[in-house]
Amino acid sequence: MAQKVDFYPDFFYLSLILPASKIMQTANRILSCDWGTSSFRLRLIDTETRQCIAEVTSDNGNASIFNRWKAQPESNRLRFYLAYLQEGVDALAKKAGGRLNDVPILVSGMASSTIGMKELPYGNIPFAIDGHTAKAEWIDAKPFLPNDVLLISGVQSENDVMRGEEVQLVGVMSQVDLKKDIGALFLFPGTHSKHIRVQNGEIVEFNTFMTGEMFEVVAKHSILAHAVTSITSDQDIESFRKGVEKALDTDLLNSLFSVRINQLKNRMTAEQNYFYLSGLLIGAEVKYIQSDDDSNVVLCSSGKLLKLYENALDCLGLSRKVVVIESGILDAAAAAGQIEIFKNFRIKR
Amino acid sequence: MAQKVDFYPDFFYLSLILPASKIMQTANRILSCDWGTSSFRLRLIDTETRQCIAEVTSDNGNASIFNRWKAQPESNRLRFYLAYLQEGVDALAKKAGGRLNDVPILVSGMASSTIGMKELPYGNIPFAIDGHTAKAEWIDAKPFLPNDVLLISGVQSENDVMRGEEVQLVGVMSQVDLKKDIGALFLFPGTHSKHIRVQNGEIVEFNTFMTGEMFEVVAKHSILAHAVTSITSDQDIESFRKGVEKALDTDLLNSLFSVRINQLKNRMTAEQNYFYLSGLLIGAEVKYIQSDDDSNVVLCSSGKLLKLYENALDCLGLSRKVVVIESGILDAAAAAGQIEIFKNFRIKR
Repeated sequence: MAQKVDFYPDFFYLSLILPASKIMQTANRILSCDWGTSSFRLRLIDTETRQCIAEVTSDNGNASIFNRWKAQPESNRLRFYLAYLQEGVDALAKKAGGRLNDVPILVSGMASSTIGMKELPYGNIPFAIDGHTAKAEWIDAKPFLPNDVLLISGVQSENDVMRGEEVQLVGVMSQVDLKKDIGALFLFPGTHSKHIRVQNGEIVEFNTFMTGEMFEVVAKHSILAHAVTSITSDQDIESFRKGVEKALDTDLLNSLFSVRINQLKNRMTAEQNYFYLSGLLIGAEVKYIQSDDDSNVVLCSSGKLLKLYENALDCLGLSRKVVVIESGILDAAAAAGQIEIFKNFRIKR
Repeated sequence: MAQKVDFYPDFFYLSLILPASKIMQTANRILSCDWGTSSFRLRLIDTETRQCIAEVTSDNGNASIFNRWKAQPESNRLRFYLAYLQEGVDALAKKAGGRLNDVPILVSGMASSTIGMKELPYGNIPFAIDGHTAKAEWIDAKPFLPNDVLLISGVQSENDVMRGEEVQLVGVMSQVDLKKDIGALFLFPGTHSKHIRVQNGEIVEFNTFMTGEMFEVVAKHSILAHAVTSITSDQDIESFRKGVEKALDTDLLNSLFSVRINQLKNRMTAEQNYFYLSGLLIGAEVKYIQSDDDSNVVLCSSGKLLKLYENALDCLGLSRKVVVIESGILDAAAAAGQIEIFKNFRIKR
């Protein structure tokens, strides 16, 4: 029996997407756990329709669970993480009104990292986008948790690593029909944006850009903090595009100072500067992409970030080659990718 | 009579460079005040020999004085700053054993900015490197301070500003004989590095790079903070050069993540990574400099930073065109520049 740990149980946000009566009718189900550095998401998925039946989410990403594990006397790290997972399963089962003990749990993201439940070696590139070369491991969870748990690892190249985006990419590819014979550059924007180059059905290269984190750090901790103000209203695309144009002209350490100049010379308000700074950073991220390359640029993003990246790529004259993955497909991508990888492991087991 | 403000008077560090007996023998003297954002330096200078007779320094730069002025009821900003200046003069006079009331004070740096004693409009480019086009203003100090005070302003271009480095540049040019007919790019490394392009005796362009500040912010506030450790021992030039080489290959938002990779893959210790990160940033600053340009690159730096910049420029293949200004000349540059500018204003007055 898994040890119960009282991690802010009210921190779970539950969504019941299908009516409760539907849940027990579903024969083929998995529990999809997308466990990042700063967030936790557990979903009950119908593997045939790939529809999400219900989900729980929390802010208890691997970083926070790791810190809690280090701060208490329980020495078994795996057991500690599984106990948290069990809480998620229990919350889901209780609200959804049924047992989930026999449903396998598929886990991807930072859960297989040094700060996760168990560190797994990375898979390597080239990495098949149907997921069949993914590295994963059945976790010996039985003493602590009744479900089978498949922990899926990340991918490394010579000079980079990722855990999670490659599973989402597998999931996207299982849902859309992109021309697989020509190359594509997949962009997953975020705190650490990933640019993943795919050729002939394989990931052949990828690069991490610290765009989102640098935005946070500069806007909060540098002298530019006095020159930018976050706003919650509409996006100021005009100021954003000015930032992108500046980024194309100059190197980042120099262009950053133009945020200060905008303030000193009263050229922009702090609200405008906020989007201008965003343009400088996103522009600096994407500026290397060549317009004369035949590859498509596949934007795997939704909401506000999507609009910003679309504009940044448009400033580079790349609009005609941009493919946007629709938000519904993107939202289901992690689970869909896990299911593809799970297929192989179910056979192999 | 200036109001007395008790600003940590023990914060002043006094150096008596010549014997006290020498001080009163000097007829031509000025008080040179180099007042930056975070430091204050007041020196008694012999204008004929340009030798420093005595100095006081403190950490009370304009930023801290500005904050103190805002926090107290004294409404006259100029008076508040002059009171602090008076304390410096008194400390210098007391320790040096003589009156300094009749010695003019020349002030440059951030003291003429929005956070300084009085904001002055910038001078413009092209800006003569003999200082004769500098903007400066005699401050009406008499009600508060017996000395004459000349406040020297900074320089602006269309897209940049500086306050202080241009005066140091005037001072360097008054002491060394660089070929004035060919161009030169002057580098003043620091928190906000300045690159100043000089042609035919004029500053024609300059750019600010937020190199030092970004190093601080990234090393303290990003995930890379866990991957770097500051060391006080010898500089690790090998790791630094690896950072510069990486910077030449890739854009900064991407190269920064290699600090994390060095840690994850056990390629560097946190101490090595500290210098590697420094190499990434300094490399990203200087990488635009072309080796096929005829201009000299004039390094206006001393100590640890000088060695790093020399190595970064060497990685770019630029060593043969680098001129290093010796530290003695650099140390005297602000005062020497002020004296050049003062000459014109003494005549004009």
